[in-house]
Amino acid sequence: MMSHPLADSVKVLAFDVFGTVVDWRSSVIAEGEQLGTNKGLKVDWAAFADAWRAVYHPSLNRVRKGELPWTKLDYLHRTSLEEILKKFQVPGLSDEEKNQLNRVWHRLNPWPDSVAGLERLKSRFVITTLSNGNISLLTNMAKHAGLPWDCVLSAENVHHYKPDPEVYLLVPGLFDLEPENVMMVAAHEQDLQAAQKQGLRTALVHRPLEHGPGKAVPIPLSDKYDVVAKDFLDLADQLGI
Amino acid sequence: MMSHPLADSVKVLAFDVFGTVVDWRSSVIAEGEQLGTNKGLKVDWAAFADAWRAVYHPSLNRVRKGELPWTKLDYLHRTSLEEILKKFQVPGLSDEEKNQLNRVWHRLNPWPDSVAGLERLKSRFVITTLSNGNISLLTNMAKHAGLPWDCVLSAENVHHYKPDPEVYLLVPGLFDLEPENVMMVAAHEQDLQAAQKQGLRTALVHRPLEHGPGKAVPIPLSDKYDVVAKDFLDLADQLGI
Repeated sequence: MMSHPLADSVKVLAFDVFGTVVDWRSSVIAEGEQLGTNKGLKVDWAAFADAWRAVYHPSLNRVRKGELPWTKLDYLHRTSLEEILKKFQVPGLSDEEKNQLNRVWHRLNPWPDSVAGLERLKSRFVITTLSNGNISLLTNMAKHAGLPWDCVLSAENVHHYKPDPEVYLLVPGLFDLEPENVMMVAAHEQDLQAAQKQGLRTALVHRPLEHGPGKAVPIPLSDKYDVVAKDFLDLADQLGI
Repeated sequence: MMSHPLADSVKVLAFDVFGTVVDWRSSVIAEGEQLGTNKGLKVDWAAFADAWRAVYHPSLNRVRKGELPWTKLDYLHRTSLEEILKKFQVPGLSDEEKNQLNRVWHRLNPWPDSVAGLERLKSRFVITTLSNGNISLLTNMAKHAGLPWDCVLSAENVHHYKPDPEVYLLVPGLFDLEPENVMMVAAHEQDLQAAQKQGLRTALVHRPLEHGPGKAVPIPLSDKYDVVAKDFLDLADQLGI
């Protein structure tokens, strides 16, 4: 396999995590269903998962716009969980049960190719998270899912959420690299386009099941990003590993 | 083996790195000797390594006292390398060779028990670095030495060097824990005593060869620290893993 022309100049791969590395939706649904069975609750957990995730960007934006001071994602999730529990009329959960449910975001399961793909990519590159998840969330998730990160970097390092520029510039700053020596890997075009604006290289990984069956967005034209891959194994193939 | 009474309350083990996890002295000597052979230099590399390390604490203290703004350890090492090269009258190294030598701190070798001990400890606890080394240094070292950290935390996260309190308090803050749920693991009493002042638990690991043969400091009385261990395997034994 020919190596990608960027494979030598790129030193660090920085990964978006929710949706790109882990399947948040099916993981939240599975834990919800287990909780529902244990507590005798009738809840549409797929709709619940989607509703909880739907308030993710609005809650980040409250921090990004300065309406809230820096607040780690665990706390934003915990606040939005209260809203969603009310909206779905879920009765009778104790604070401990709510805290346990909130920490489902620390226990998300990887896509089938994630661990094997990361192991291959790690043999050539430094692989790091670059996620809006807080550091403890990402660390606990890595233990849960067996994700072999070389280090755990987060919006929490800079107290700014993506797509603020500070998050993308963190990686070249820490590693004494130029932005073009760092490649952002994500399933979301907004993330990659914000990384591009700061001079990072980009790889789009298609995750057609992120929002459930039948909800895939079209694969963008391949010339918008340095690599467009169907999963992490394909990304490793294209980078010549 | 009985489990230590703290094994349930402690959730995160935070490791000092230079001297505690890796043998900086023999690693610097070995790279120096290789460079000396390649370049035909006559240098006492053991004395060189000791002299370079001897200016480590004074250079951190310039930052701690505010004489220098926050400066990552790589840059402090690079500045002190110039002094030491002059002191040892080492001639004719290019900037690239000096930069390469400076990055020996990214390529330090572990003590013989470090990797196996960390693997065991990782099965029960979150294991993180808590070092004055910068994040890229610790990340590259982990790749070089096979250190299986769950995350990489550094003085660089808080822009304070140990023994400043901010460094120790970083870990309970990130993990939403009380200080007593975090155990600092180090070979140096100054580090452990500063951690104790912030309420962390402590484990002293004896590293009698850190400063070379015949330079061991006495093992302190065991009641000064929660655990006193002869290496990481003994630490795992004492914690009941």
